Amino acid sequence: MRRIRLGMVGGGQDAFIGGVHRIAARIDNRFELVAGALSSSPERAQASGRALGLDPARTYDDFKAMAKREARLKDGIEAVSIVTPNHMHAPVAKEFLKRGIHVICDKPLTATLAEAKSLVKAAEKSDALFVLTHNYTGYPLMRHARQMIANGDLGTIRVVQVEYAQDWLAETPDPDNKQAAWRTDPAQSGAGGSTGDIGTHAYNLARFVTGLPLEALAADLHSFVPGRELDDNAHVMLRFEGGARGMLWCSQVATGSENRLTLRVYGDKGGIEWGQENPNEMRFTPYGEPARILTRAGASGADQGTRIPGGHPEGYLEAFATIYSDAADAIEGKGKSPALYPTVQDGLEGVAFVDACVRSSKRNAAWVTL
Amino acid sequence: MRRIRLGMVGGGQDAFIGGVHRIAARIDNRFELVAGALSSSPERAQASGRALGLDPARTYDDFKAMAKREARLKDGIEAVSIVTPNHMHAPVAKEFLKRGIHVICDKPLTATLAEAKSLVKAAEKSDALFVLTHNYTGYPLMRHARQMIANGDLGTIRVVQVEYAQDWLAETPDPDNKQAAWRTDPAQSGAGGSTGDIGTHAYNLARFVTGLPLEALAADLHSFVPGRELDDNAHVMLRFEGGARGMLWCSQVATGSENRLTLRVYGDKGGIEWGQENPNEMRFTPYGEPARILTRAGASGADQGTRIPGGHPEGYLEAFATIYSDAADAIEGKGKSPALYPTVQDGLEGVAFVDACVRSSKRNAAWVTL
Amino acid sequence: MRRIRLGMVGGGQDAFIGGVHRIAARIDNRFELVAGALSSSPERAQASGRALGLDPARTYDDFKAMAKREARLKDGIEAVSIVTPNHMHAPVAKEFLKRGIHVICDKPLTATLAEAKSLVKAAEKSDALFVLTHNYTGYPLMRHARQMIANGDLGTIRVVQVEYAQDWLAETPDPDNKQAAWRTDPAQSGAGGSTGDIGTHAYNLARFVTGLPLEALAADLHSFVPGRELDDNAHVMLRFEGGARGMLWCSQVATGSENRLTLRVYGDKGGIEWGQENPNEMRFTPYGEPARILTRAGASGADQGTRIPGGHPEGYLEAFATIYSDAADAIEGKGKSPALYPTVQDGLEGVAFVDACVRSSKRNAAWVTL
Amino acid sequence: MRRIRLGMVGGGQDAFIGGVHRIAARIDNRFELVAGALSSSPERAQASGRALGLDPARTYDDFKAMAKREARLKDGIEAVSIVTPNHMHAPVAKEFLKRGIHVICDKPLTATLAEAKSLVKAAEKSDALFVLTHNYTGYPLMRHARQMIANGDLGTIRVVQVEYAQDWLAETPDPDNKQAAWRTDPAQSGAGGSTGDIGTHAYNLARFVTGLPLEALAADLHSFVPGRELDDNAHVMLRFEGGARGMLWCSQVATGSENRLTLRVYGDKGGIEWGQENPNEMRFTPYGEPARILTRAGASGADQGTRIPGGHPEGYLEAFATIYSDAADAIEGKGKSPALYPTVQDGLEGVAFVDACVRSSKRNAAWVTL
Repeated sequence: MRRIRLGMVGGGQDAFIGGVHRIAARIDNRFELVAGALSSSPERAQASGRALGLDPARTYDDFKAMAKREARLKDGIEAVSIVTPNHMHAPVAKEFLKRGIHVICDKPLTATLAEAKSLVKAAEKSDALFVLTHNYTGYPLMRHARQMIANGDLGTIRVVQVEYAQDWLAETPDPDNKQAAWRTDPAQSGAGGSTGDIGTHAYNLARFVTGLPLEALAADLHSFVPGRELDDNAHVMLRFEGGARGMLWCSQVATGSENRLTLRVYGDKGGIEWGQENPNEMRFTPYGEPARILTRAGASGADQGTRIPGGHPEGYLEAFATIYSDAADAIEGKGKSPALYPTVQDGLEGVAFVDACVRSSKRNAAWVTL
Repeated sequence: MRRIRLGMVGGGQDAFIGGVHRIAARIDNRFELVAGALSSSPERAQASGRALGLDPARTYDDFKAMAKREARLKDGIEAVSIVTPNHMHAPVAKEFLKRGIHVICDKPLTATLAEAKSLVKAAEKSDALFVLTHNYTGYPLMRHARQMIANGDLGTIRVVQVEYAQDWLAETPDPDNKQAAWRTDPAQSGAGGSTGDIGTHAYNLARFVTGLPLEALAADLHSFVPGRELDDNAHVMLRFEGGARGMLWCSQVATGSENRLTLRVYGDKGGIEWGQENPNEMRFTPYGEPARILTRAGASGADQGTRIPGGHPEGYLEAFATIYSDAADAIEGKGKSPALYPTVQDGLEGVAFVDACVRSSKRNAAWVTL
Repeated sequence: MRRIRLGMVGGGQDAFIGGVHRIAARIDNRFELVAGALSSSPERAQASGRALGLDPARTYDDFKAMAKREARLKDGIEAVSIVTPNHMHAPVAKEFLKRGIHVICDKPLTATLAEAKSLVKAAEKSDALFVLTHNYTGYPLMRHARQMIANGDLGTIRVVQVEYAQDWLAETPDPDNKQAAWRTDPAQSGAGGSTGDIGTHAYNLARFVTGLPLEALAADLHSFVPGRELDDNAHVMLRFEGGARGMLWCSQVATGSENRLTLRVYGDKGGIEWGQENPNEMRFTPYGEPARILTRAGASGADQGTRIPGGHPEGYLEAFATIYSDAADAIEGKGKSPALYPTVQDGLEGVAFVDACVRSSKRNAAWVTL
Repeated sequence: MRRIRLGMVGGGQDAFIGGVHRIAARIDNRFELVAGALSSSPERAQASGRALGLDPARTYDDFKAMAKREARLKDGIEAVSIVTPNHMHAPVAKEFLKRGIHVICDKPLTATLAEAKSLVKAAEKSDALFVLTHNYTGYPLMRHARQMIANGDLGTIRVVQVEYAQDWLAETPDPDNKQAAWRTDPAQSGAGGSTGDIGTHAYNLARFVTGLPLEALAADLHSFVPGRELDDNAHVMLRFEGGARGMLWCSQVATGSENRLTLRVYGDKGGIEWGQENPNEMRFTPYGEPARILTRAGASGADQGTRIPGGHPEGYLEAFATIYSDAADAIEGKGKSPALYPTVQDGLEGVAFVDACVRSSKRNAAWVTL
C-alpha cells in the first residue's frame, strides 16, 4: 500500500468542488495531497495551502510553475486534480499532461468544443492518464445498471428518460456568490449554462448506463431569469443509435429540486428507475413481473464500488471516491479494461452535447448530430 | 334528493371503461342507470342489460332507437354516458344532444379533428350539457393545485413536466384483447395511439392545473412494437402562452409502469409535484423553504371533491365520481361557474393536441400550433 | 341481478361512518337503501331520510319500530347496517337478528365484553348473517398477504408489527365535535379509547392476515390529554400461538399521523410490509432476495376484490365496499367458505382484546390472555 | 492544520467496523493512522499493518505493548480507536486511558455492566477523552432534531418509537462468519444479542434526540434461531421521565430489513419521523399543518455536520466521520460544550439498558429501571 502523490489546481477557500475532490481522494486512502495551486491570488493561494496543511514550498499561485517544478522534483506529484472553472481546464491540463503527470479533471471537459478537441489530442499524445469526474457513474447501482443492460436484462432499449433538476439559480444570484458567478458567465462556463453544468452529467450518465451512442438531438434551451446570458433550463429530445428515443431535462430553476438527478430506462424485457435522492435503491421491473427493489450491497449483487453493508447508505462522496479509486487503479496499472472511469473522449462527447444543444436551440430545436 | 335518470351507450360485457362509469355514477348517488344500448350485437346487448338489472324494454341494441324512444318517454333518460370506442363518440353524442339529453362522454372527444369540430357545433346548438370524462381532473389535489396556481402560490409558471406511462402494449397484444384491438386501430381510435389514449389525459391535466394555453408543440412519435400502426410512445416539447416551457411524455411501452401519471409544475415562487401512484399526497415547495406534503382532506385545505378524512385514501374511482357529481350539479342547475368538469371545448383541444402531435411528428418534430 | 333491500340505523346528518357505509353499499350495486332509523331525534331522522331520498313512511326515529315494521313488510329490508356509537350496537343488532334480518355492523362489536358475549349468542340463534365491518381486511393486498402466509410464502411467522396512528385527538376536542364526544365517553365507547376505536382494527388486521391466535398480551395504556377518561395511546406487546411475537401501537395523539395503519410480518422465509397510506403497494421480501413491490391488480396476482387495473389506485371506500359485497354474496348464498368477511366471533375477539388491554394496563402491563 | 496521530486496536483483515473507523477518520482529514495492534495473531497483525501502509515498527500484536511504547514515543499516538469485540473494549481502553491517550471506542461500551462501571471510573481518572462511536448521532438531521426538540418545536414529548431491524442473523450463520460468531457468543458480546449490537444504538439515538432519561422499561427478548444463546429480537416498552412513553424494537431476524433504523417522536406541538434508509430527509409535522420535508443542508437549516449541498446525499460514513471530527475538535480543545459526541456515560447507560432488558425479560417483561 502506498499513496499516490497528488496536486490540485483550483479549489481554494470558498470553492465548492475542490473540497469534494479532496474528500473523494481521501476516502479510499489511495492519494495524498502534497501540492497545490489553489488560487491565482498569491495570498489566497498561501492561505488555502496552509489551511490544508500543505508544505508552503509546494503551495503555488501559478499552475505552470507548479507543473514545471513538480515534474522535476524527485517526489513530485504523480497526478493533479483540476477543479477550476471550465475555461481553465484545457490550459491547465495540457501543462501537466505534457509532463507526464496524470490528470483528474472536473467536468465539463472544457468551455468550448475547439478546446475539447485540442485537449483530446494533448491527452492522446501524453503517456499520462486523463480521468474526468463524471462522478455519478461511480454510484454502485449505476454500475450495476450498466452491467444489467450489457447483459441484456432489459432487452432492447426503447426509451431513456434522464433529468437533472436544481433550483439554486431560480433567481438572480447574489453577486458575491462565486459559484453562481462563473457558471452564468459565458467566458468562463462556455456556451452552455444548465446544459454544461448539469446537462452534461445527465447525458453522460445515460450514455454510461445504456452504452448507446446518440444519433441526434433536438433542444429547446431557455433562460428564465431576466438578464441571464446562458440557459437555465433545457428540454432535449434524444434519438439513439439502434432506435431508442428519450428525453433529457435539466433545469436550475425547478423550484423545490435540490440536486434531483434521475435516470429511467425501458427496454422490451424490463425497465429500471433510479434517482440520486436515494441512490442506494434502484427499481427494476422485468416485464410482466413485480418490480424488484435492488439495493446497493444487498441481495441484488450490486456491489461494485461499495464499502459498507446494504442498508447503511453511501452517498455522493463515496461515488465520487470511486472515480478516484478507479484512477488510482489505472495509475497503478491495476485498472480494468475497458476502464469504467470517464475519459477524455467522454469529455469531448459531453462538450459536443452542449454544443449540439446550443446549435439545435438556435435553429428552433431542429435535429442536429453531435 | 332525487337521482338523475341515466342511460349508457357501450359498456357491455368485457368492456372496461363502462364499468368504471357506472361505479362513478353510483358513488355519490346522483344518478340511476335505467336504460342502455350496451352493445350493437342484440344478444350481447340483452345479456349485458340483464346483468345490470335493466328493464328489457329499455335495453337497446341501437343507440338511435334508444335516443328516439327515451326522448319520448315520460320518465326517459335525462343524461347518457357514452363509453364506445373513439370513432363512435360523435355520432352517438349528436343523437342525444339534438334531443336535449345531456351527454357524459369518455375521452378523447372524437377520433378526428373534423368530427370534434362538428361535435362542438352540435353541443353549442343543444340546450343539453356536454361533459367529457377527463377524470384525473377530479382528483382533489389536482383541483387544489389549480386553485393554488390561480392564487399565485407558485408565481409565474416556468416549467411544466407531465407524463403518462404504461406498459400494457409493450408487446403485440393477444388478438382477443378488445381493449387493445380498438386502441391500436386507426379506424376506431383516430390518428393518435398513445397520444390519443393517454397523452390527451396528460395534456388535459396540465392544461387544467396550470390554466395555460399551449402556444406550440414539437412531437417525436414512435411505434416500437413491430407492425403497430399508431404511436406507442411520444416525446413532446411544449411552449405555453406567457413563456412557460414543458415536456409531455406518454408511453405504452414503458416496462414496469402501470398507469403512471405525474405532473410537476415549477413557478418562480414555488413548485408542485404529484403522481397518481399516491394521489392523496402532493409535494409543494415554496421557493427557499422546506417542501410541504399536502394531503387530501388534511391540514392543507385540499378538500374539494373529497368524501372521507385524510389518511383514508381515495382513488381513481372517487376522482371519476367527482366528474359525475359535477355533471349532476350542472344538470340540476347548481354547478359552479366556471364549471370544473371538462367540456366539449376541452375535448376539441385534446383532439387538436393529438392532431398537432401527428402533424409535428410527420415533419420531424417541427413546431406546430394546435 | 337484483339489489338487496337495506336499512340503516344511525348515520344521520353530521355522522361520519354512516355515509361511508352508504357509499360502500352502493359501489358494487348489490344493495339499495330503502329504510332508516337515522337518528333518535324525530326531526333529525326525517330530515336525514329526506336528504337520502328515503320514503318518509320508512323513515323511523325508533330502531325497534323499524325492525318490527320492516320485518312484516312484504318488501321489507333484508339487511340492516348499524352505524351507531358502540354501546348501541348490541341492542340494535338483537332486534334485527331475532327477526331474521341480516346485520352489517360497525366495529367494535360492542362497548363491553358482556354485551359482546350476549350478542354472539343472539347471532348464533338467528338464521341471519352477522357481518362486522373491519373494513381494512377488504384491501386486496391484505387478502393477498393472508393467502401468501397461508401458502407458506413467508415460512414460520416470527414477528408481527402493527400500528394505527392518528392525531385528531391530540388536544381536547371542540365540544361540538360529536365524533370525538362519543368516542371519548366510556358510557358510549366502552372501556377502550384508542384501543377500542383503532386498536381493534389493527389487532383484527394482524389476526386476519397472519391467521395466528393471540396467546397473551402486555399493554401500557395512557391518556395524554388532560381530563380524558379513556386511553389515547397504547403500546401492546403480543405473543401469538406458535411462538410469534409482536407489537401493536395505536395512538390518537401521534401528531402528523392521519390514519396511519401499517402491518409488517416477518417469517423465516420472508417478510411483508404494507401501509394504508399507499394501499395499492405491498413490499414482499423473500429472504435473501431483492424486495418485490406487489401491486394491487398488477403482476403480483393480487386481484381479490379489485375493480380496476393496476396503477389506478383504489382506496378506503373500495376496501369497505368489498366487505359489503362479501356480505351480499353470503346473503345470496354465493359466499366463499370460510367467509372472508369479519364475523361476530371476530367482533368478540376484538372486544376481548380491548378488555385484555385494559386489564393488563391496570396491572402495570402484566401479561394477560384474551 | 495538523492531523492527530491515531492508533487502532482490532480492525485487521476480515473485520468490518475497523475499516469503517478508518474511512471515518480520514474523511475530514483530522487524523492520521500511524500505529496499530490490528490482530492478536502476529502474522495477521503484520499483514494487516502492511496492507494499511503502517510502519512495521509500529505494527503490534499486543495492545499493551502498543500502549506502552506509543506513550513513550515522541511522536506517539495521541488517540486510539478500539474496534475489538465488546469484551475487549474495557481492558484495551484502560491501557490507553491510564497513559493519557484519548480513546475512540466502538459500541456497546463493554460486554458487562460491571466492566462498564469500572471503565467509567478509569475514564474519569484519566485526562484523556473517551468518545463512543454511536455513529447515528452524527447524522445531521438527528442533530437538527435534537435541537428542534430542545427548542420546543415539538412541545412536550409524548410518544417515542424507535426501531432497528436487520435480517442478517435470520438463520444460523456460516461458522466462518467472524462477525456473526462473536456477536452471538455471550463471552465476547455480553448478555445482549440484538439488544447489545443494535438495540443500544436505537436506545442511544432516542436518548440523544429527545434528551429524555428513561424511567423504566419492560422487555420481551427472544431467540428465534434454534440454538442461539443470545436474543435476536427484542420488544421493549419504554417510560421516560416526564411522562413520555415509547417502544423500541430491535431485530436481527426481520427478513427483508437491511439496517432499518427509524426514529419517530411525537410531542403535543408536532412530530418528526426519520429513517436511515434515506437519512437526508426528515418529516416534521407541526400539529395541524402540512408535513414539512426537512432536508440535510437544505432550506430547513439542518446543516450541522454536513459537507456538501442538499440533494447530494451523505450517508453512514459521513455521519460516522462527524463523530471523529467531534473527537478531533475536543482533542484540539475546540469542542462544543456540552459535547455532542457520545461519552463514556452514554456508554454506561447503553450497557445498563441491555442489562435492564435482560433482567426484565427474565422476569417476564416486568418493569425495571436502568
